[in-house]
Amino acid sequence: MANFADVAKQFTDFYYNQFDADRKQLAALYRENSMLTFESASVIGAPSIVEKLASLPFEKVKHAVGTLDAQPAPHDGILILVTGALLVDAEERPMNYTQTFQLLPDGAGSFFIFNDIFKLVYG
Amino acid sequence: MANFADVAKQFTDFYYNQFDADRKQLAALYRENSMLTFESASVIGAPSIVEKLASLPFEKVKHAVGTLDAQPAPHDGILILVTGALLVDAEERPMNYTQTFQLLPDGAGSFFIFNDIFKLVYG
Repeated sequence: MANFADVAKQFTDFYYNQFDADRKQLAALYRENSMLTFESASVIGAPSIVEKLASLPFEKVKHAVGTLDAQPAPHDGILILVTGALLVDAEERPMNYTQTFQLLPDGAGSFFIFNDIFKLVYG
Repeated sequence: MANFADVAKQFTDFYYNQFDADRKQLAALYRENSMLTFESASVIGAPSIVEKLASLPFEKVKHAVGTLDAQPAPHDGILILVTGALLVDAEERPMNYTQTFQLLPDGAGSFFIFNDIFKLVYG
């Protein structure tokens, strides 16, 4: 199995690139029991999660990851904590955010997102 | 079993009260395979974690939790994402931080910390 820190880095790069290019494509990273809490609103399951992400009130979005920390989690999972900046549409001032993911092995050599919590950070 | 959101709230209140009163007492919340990543430096096991916490370069510390989100995690665990402000010693300006915990059941009706990642957030 790949090193958890390498997987965390690869996952995070892929996730935010995909989010910023076409966030509806993120469905493949979630399963039916995955959970997203976005600004304290929670939804369960890949279809509801992608519906939530697609409904967010911005079109153009760019994530800039500032820091990334990862730990091994139970049952070969990986826990990730990201802090970063988010630039949406014509806004010139980025918003700070933090996001934690728990990845679990999918049994086919890759990982899916079981837990996903996103929160804006106001200074 | 208590509701995961209630446990998350009770845990977070207890953790930061204990941290601010006497952080060496936090040892009881960790186990030998628990992991702390504090500002990207990682240690494993309750003794090393408490040694790390005790060695932090401040005496007086006060956490103010701003937001708390929780999700059910695999195997009856609970994943928590906190954002808040930290005031240390004679500093008058609080620092923003984010912290994620993964709690696991201890088999005796309570929970211990398996994963703990702390990160300051710079605006």
